[in-house]
Amino acid sequence: MKLTQEKCEACQVGAPKVTSEEQEQFLQELDDWIVITEVKETRNYVDNETSTTKKINKLFKEYKFKNYALALEFATQVANLAEQENHHPLIALEWGRVRVWWWTHAIEGLHKNDFVCAAKTDEL
Amino acid sequence: MKLTQEKCEACQVGAPKVTSEEQEQFLQELDDWIVITEVKETRNYVDNETSTTKKINKLFKEYKFKNYALALEFATQVANLAEQENHHPLIALEWGRVRVWWWTHAIEGLHKNDFVCAAKTDEL
Repeated sequence: MKLTQEKCEACQVGAPKVTSEEQEQFLQELDDWIVITEVKETRNYVDNETSTTKKINKLFKEYKFKNYALALEFATQVANLAEQENHHPLIALEWGRVRVWWWTHAIEGLHKNDFVCAAKTDEL
Repeated sequence: MKLTQEKCEACQVGAPKVTSEEQEQFLQELDDWIVITEVKETRNYVDNETSTTKKINKLFKEYKFKNYALALEFATQVANLAEQENHHPLIALEWGRVRVWWWTHAIEGLHKNDFVCAAKTDEL
């Protein structure tokens, strides 16, 4: 089944992250989406030496537009899709461009849902 | 005159950045806006040693909301204000929060316009 034909399923803590094989396969179905890894380092305040590093994968894409009105219209459509799927990305709106990051907070990484939503974002 | 009563003026390369005294004064008229400094380092590709550092001041504020619909509504209002003033911020929309950065691309820093727009954002 194509990603765009699937629906977001409710996702909770403990839900499976995509494997690297799945990630490869899903990315091939998408246009110009890339996986970025956000690295968060939390330093131990007591000894100021040890720290915990957390890596969160996110799906990212930048869309360009000729003017602000078109960019705003697209950002609003992405937001409406988010409500419909009950899955909410980070949307960054500026003059002439919209950037979108999909990931699943509950599992701090990528779920199949994120690829489904990315595919649907491209269809808007 | 209060910031909210002023209008954005056309801003071009060479327009004056706010002085640190003006910045202090304007910030006092605003609620919870802070100035963040973005540091961009561009390394020389030839010698890989020298580099140019550029610092860009931006006005930043985070707004929290109880749900996505309210956050989207506010983000849309900010976008409409941007079109009205012909000055466009970075708006980041997520579940439960909207972050806004105002600055002036043409002068790579803060113009009085940015404080005017920040004050008007608070009025929405």
